[in-house]
Amino acid sequence: MAKEIDNKEVSNREDDYSKWYNNLVVKADLAEQSAVRGCMVIKPYGYAIWEKMHDELDRMFKETGHVNAYFPLFIPKSFLSREAEHVEGFAKECAVVTHHRLKVSDDGKGVVVDPEARLEEELIVRPTSETIIWNTYKNWIKSWRDLPLLCNQWANVVRWEMRTRLFLRTAEFLWQEGHTAHATREEAVEEAQRMVQVYADFARRTMAMPVVVGVKSETERFAGALDTYTIEAMMQDGKALQAGTSHFLGQNFAKAFDVQFANREGKLEYVWATSWGVSTRLMGALIMTHSDNNGLVLPPALAPIQVVMVPIYKTEEELAQIVGRMNEIKAEMATQGISVKIDDRDNLRPGFKFAEWELKGVPVRIVIGPRDLQNGVVELARRDTMEKESVSQEGLAARVAGLLKDIQQHLYDKAAAFREANIRRVDTWDEFKVEIEKGGFLLCHWDGTPETEEKIKEETKATIRCIPLDSFVCEEEGKCVYSGRPSHRRVIFARAY
Amino acid sequence: MAKEIDNKEVSNREDDYSKWYNNLVVKADLAEQSAVRGCMVIKPYGYAIWEKMHDELDRMFKETGHVNAYFPLFIPKSFLSREAEHVEGFAKECAVVTHHRLKVSDDGKGVVVDPEARLEEELIVRPTSETIIWNTYKNWIKSWRDLPLLCNQWANVVRWEMRTRLFLRTAEFLWQEGHTAHATREEAVEEAQRMVQVYADFARRTMAMPVVVGVKSETERFAGALDTYTIEAMMQDGKALQAGTSHFLGQNFAKAFDVQFANREGKLEYVWATSWGVSTRLMGALIMTHSDNNGLVLPPALAPIQVVMVPIYKTEEELAQIVGRMNEIKAEMATQGISVKIDDRDNLRPGFKFAEWELKGVPVRIVIGPRDLQNGVVELARRDTMEKESVSQEGLAARVAGLLKDIQQHLYDKAAAFREANIRRVDTWDEFKVEIEKGGFLLCHWDGTPETEEKIKEETKATIRCIPLDSFVCEEEGKCVYSGRPSHRRVIFARAY
Repeated sequence: MAKEIDNKEVSNREDDYSKWYNNLVVKADLAEQSAVRGCMVIKPYGYAIWEKMHDELDRMFKETGHVNAYFPLFIPKSFLSREAEHVEGFAKECAVVTHHRLKVSDDGKGVVVDPEARLEEELIVRPTSETIIWNTYKNWIKSWRDLPLLCNQWANVVRWEMRTRLFLRTAEFLWQEGHTAHATREEAVEEAQRMVQVYADFARRTMAMPVVVGVKSETERFAGALDTYTIEAMMQDGKALQAGTSHFLGQNFAKAFDVQFANREGKLEYVWATSWGVSTRLMGALIMTHSDNNGLVLPPALAPIQVVMVPIYKTEEELAQIVGRMNEIKAEMATQGISVKIDDRDNLRPGFKFAEWELKGVPVRIVIGPRDLQNGVVELARRDTMEKESVSQEGLAARVAGLLKDIQQHLYDKAAAFREANIRRVDTWDEFKVEIEKGGFLLCHWDGTPETEEKIKEETKATIRCIPLDSFVCEEEGKCVYSGRPSHRRVIFARAY
Repeated sequence: MAKEIDNKEVSNREDDYSKWYNNLVVKADLAEQSAVRGCMVIKPYGYAIWEKMHDELDRMFKETGHVNAYFPLFIPKSFLSREAEHVEGFAKECAVVTHHRLKVSDDGKGVVVDPEARLEEELIVRPTSETIIWNTYKNWIKSWRDLPLLCNQWANVVRWEMRTRLFLRTAEFLWQEGHTAHATREEAVEEAQRMVQVYADFARRTMAMPVVVGVKSETERFAGALDTYTIEAMMQDGKALQAGTSHFLGQNFAKAFDVQFANREGKLEYVWATSWGVSTRLMGALIMTHSDNNGLVLPPALAPIQVVMVPIYKTEEELAQIVGRMNEIKAEMATQGISVKIDDRDNLRPGFKFAEWELKGVPVRIVIGPRDLQNGVVELARRDTMEKESVSQEGLAARVAGLLKDIQQHLYDKAAAFREANIRRVDTWDEFKVEIEKGGFLLCHWDGTPETEEKIKEETKATIRCIPLDSFVCEEEGKCVYSGRPSHRRVIFARAY
C-alpha cells in the first residue's frame, strides 16, 4: 500500500489540535471512518499497536489471577432495566435488534426487514456486559468456595454516540471488561483498586504516559457503581483524557440478578462485584501524548516496527551489498527481541521513506550508504528527538536495545514534564475562569456537592476528573473555589475528551 | 469453582452421541447456553483452549504474510444486496438493528424502544464481512503496487440459526475471516488453496485431527464464491464436520463494490478476491474427535493444563513435603515449556480430583504419595490410554515432554485409523442406502449435476462433503452411484453436522 504521502498535509498541532489529530490518525494508517455512522475501520498498522496493548494487558491480567471468558453480544432488553442507574446510563445510546430476517422487497429490487421476523423481546447490542454476566454468574456461584471469580472478556461494544471521533469516541469500540465476584466488600474494593493500579502501571511503563490515579466524584461515576477509580492523562493540548476505569459495584448487580452465596457458616449473602475496562480509546491517548508535527511518535514498547533500515545506493550492486549487511544486522537484533523492517523498495527516494517512517512513528531509523558500508558505520536516528549520529556497526544491536530503552524513558519524562508544567493550584473563582482557558489540570478545593460541580461545568465546561489518590498531595483544609464552603482536599478540574 | 462432579452424569457415547456431546461440553466447563436464544457463554476453560487455537492460527497467518485489521460489526442493509448470491445466502438469518435508543415506558416500569430513534437505514450485525470490507478496499486499492492485500480479522459474527448446538452451530460465534485482494486470478486461486492447506496443517498438527482437503460442489459453495475449498473431518459417530473453508471469490465483490486497480500498463482491472475462515466450531470438532466416556481428551498442543499433579497424603506435614517436591518438578517442567497445575485442594479426595481432571482432558497426571517421595518415583498416567506407570523423578521433565509428543501423535493416529475404518468405496445405489446408515464417508462416483446431489440428499440426508484434493485417489472412470451416468472421479458423501 505504498502511497504518495505529502507530509505537509499533516497539519500543525499549534494551529488546530483537533485537525492535527484526525489528520494524523488517517495519514499514519491507523484508522479511518467506515461507511457505518460512527464506526471506524482499524487499519493494519493501528491494529498492530492495539495487539501489542492487548498482549501486554492480557499478560498483566493473567499474572494477577484473572482468566478470560466470552459472553453474548446481545443483552435482552429486560436485563438492562434490572439495575436502575445502569439502564439510565445506557438506554439513550443503544443499538437495538428488533428482527432476525430480511426478505426480498415486493419490487424484487432489494431486501427489506421481514415484519414477520420480529423478536419477542428486543435485544440490545452490549454497551457493557454487567447485566448478562451477572445473570450468568447466578449459576456459577453457590458457595464461598466459588469465590473470588476473576473473569475478563475481550470484546466489541456499541454505544450510539452522537458525536464521534476516531479512537476517542466511536459507536463501536474494542475493549476488555473485567468482571469479578467476591465474598466481602473489602476484597472487592481491594480488587477495584488493584486493577486501576494495573492500568496505571501499564500506562506509565508501556505507553510511557503519566497518569493520575484517582477516584471519581459521584456525578462522574459509572452507572451502577458505588465508586469509580480512574486513570487520567493530560493530552498535549492540556485537556484531560480518562484512559481507564475500575468500578466497585457493591452488591448492586448481585441484588439485581439475585446472586447469593453460602458463606463459611452456611448463610446466604449477596456477592460483591467489580468491573474494570480499557478500550481502543487508549490508542487516542497514545497518539495525543507523544506525537508531533512530523507524525506519530511511538514508545518502543508498543511499536510494531522498532527499527527501520533504509539503504542509500546508486547501483543494483550497492543495494544488494547494503541489504545483505542489513539482513545480518536484523538477525543480530532479532536475538535481542528487536523488530526490524528493511525498506528496500526500489521505487521511492530515501527522503520519501524517511518522511513515511517518521509519520508512522518508528522509534529508530538506521541508514546505510556505500561509504558507511566501507567504514563499518551506520547513521542512527531517533524519532523522538530527531537526532542523528554516526555509530559503529560493531555492537549495534546492544546499542539499539539501549537506545530503545532510553527513548521509552525519554518519552515518559517529556510527557511528565509537560504535565508538571500544566498543573496549577488555583484558589479563587476569578483565577479559575482565567486559568481554565489556558488548559491543563487545576488543583482546587471543592465543597463536595454535585450542585457546585454542575455549576462549574456549566460556566466553564470543566469537570472534576478525579480526587487524586497518588501523584499529588491533596489532603489539606481549604475553601471551595466556587462556593467558598469548607473543603478537606483538592481535586482535579479540567476540560476533558 | 470446585463443584460436586458426578462422573456418571457424563453419558455414554454409544447410547446417545448427541447427548454425550452436550453433556460433556457443559460438564467439562467449556461452554453453556446463555439467556439469549442460540448464543453461548464460552467458559474460562473452554476459552483457554480457543485462545491456544487463536494464537497458533494467528502465528501461521502472520508467517504467511497476513496482517490483522478490524472492520465494523454493522453492515448497512443495502451493502448485502450488492452481490446477488451473497444476499440470498445470508438474508434469512440476520440480526437487524433498527433503532438506536430506548426510553422509559409510559407506565414508568421498564424501558421500550424509542420509536423516534429509528435508523434511516437498517444495519445488519455482520454474518460475514465481505461487503463492508470490499467497500473499504475500494479506497485502499488504486494500483498494482497496493496488491496483494492480505488482511485477517478476528471477530464475532451472528447468523440467526433456528436450531443451535454449543460450539457447532450458534447464533453468535467467534471466528477469523481472511480477506485478500490480488492482481490476477492465478494469484487469488493460489491464496485460497494456500489457506486451506494452512487450515489442514493446523487441524492435523495442532488439533491431532485428520482432515480431507477438498473442493465443494457448486451447491455447497459459499454464497458468492466461484470455488470453496474445505477441510472435512470425521467425528466419532461417523458424521462429517466441515472444519474450515477457503473461498476463491473471483471478481464478484470487486465488481459489486467497484474495486479496480491500475495494472503495470496503467489499465484498470477488477481485483481478484479470496476469503477464508475458521470458527469456534473447531472446538466442537476437537471434542468430537478425541473425547471418550470419561470426558474430554485434549491434544497436548491445545491443553491449557498439560500436566496435573495430585498429592496423596495423610498429614499436613506429608502434604507440605510432597507439594514442595511438586513445585521443584513444576519449575523444571516450566523450562521445557510444559504447563503444570498442582491440585493441592484440601477438601477433595484424590479419586474425585482424578475424575475431575480426566473429565477436563488434562493429558498427563502425576501422583506423588509419601512412599513415592521416599523412593524418588511418581505415578505417571496418560489420559488418552488411561495407562499408568511408576517412573523415576530423575529426568521426569524430559520424559514428560516426550510423553506429550507421543500423546499428540497417538491421538492423531487413533483418529486416522478410525477414519480409515469408516471410509468405504460404494458403487451401487442399493449399497449406498445401506452403507450411509452405518455412518462414515462413502467414496462414490457422481454425475456432477446439482439435481442428482439434491435427490441423494432428499433420500438419504447425505451431502457431498467435498471432491477430495488429497488423502484419496479419486480420479478414475466410473458410473454415478445414483444416475448411472458417466463420472470421472469419486467424491465423498456423508451425513454432516
